[in-house]
Amino acid sequence: MTTTADIAQHIVELCKAGNFAEAGETYWADDVVSVEAGGPPGMDPVSRGKAAARGKGEWWANAHETHSVEVDGPYVNGDQFTVRFAMDITAKESGQRMQMQEIALYTLKDGKIAEERFFYGG
Amino acid sequence: MTTTADIAQHIVELCKAGNFAEAGETYWADDVVSVEAGGPPGMDPVSRGKAAARGKGEWWANAHETHSVEVDGPYVNGDQFTVRFAMDITAKESGQRMQMQEIALYTLKDGKIAEERFFYGG
Repeated sequence: MTTTADIAQHIVELCKAGNFAEAGETYWADDVVSVEAGGPPGMDPVSRGKAAARGKGEWWANAHETHSVEVDGPYVNGDQFTVRFAMDITAKESGQRMQMQEIALYTLKDGKIAEERFFYGG
Repeated sequence: MTTTADIAQHIVELCKAGNFAEAGETYWADDVVSVEAGGPPGMDPVSRGKAAARGKGEWWANAHETHSVEVDGPYVNGDQFTVRFAMDITAKESGQRMQMQEIALYTLKDGKIAEERFFYGG
């Protein structure tokens, strides 16, 4: 039986290898809900459906140069798990380099990510 | 106005100072639900109500010698926030020293902790 811990571990391994898109394609449910803590004016913090989640990921990857990503986890409870990300990135448009920290909370249903929710560090 | 970030920051400050009980007494709702990822046989992972949450905290404090606690956060999204804890402890009964990592997810309602949910690291 595939457990929450198994899926969480695989997603963490994919993220550690930089394969964020593959993690999403493999595990997002078709009706996944992806919730940011905030965003640019005019951008809805809630993305609904696999195509919207994919689009957000592609926008992010294109808009930023990623110098390094540290992935810590998974931390598991029932059908949910959390992962901490520390990113060193440069926003291409502004040229601003930033160190970001966030924790992602994933909720699984039938072995797929039904919801992902991102918490931003200070 | 007191925001989620304000309350989260205060709770993190109390925890960094080792004042876990004070953090709970100040912010737990009377009907707080506290959810562990697991527990010893016979122990319900879900505690309901402030008295039960307090009892769990007192049991934990009495059963373990705490050598150090690292508190990382808060990470905020809406009325929820997460905090990462890394603990170096010894279980008094077994004498076993352990390094534990967990992430706590807090859900606020009317400025109080309505739910806290603990995710265990590997």
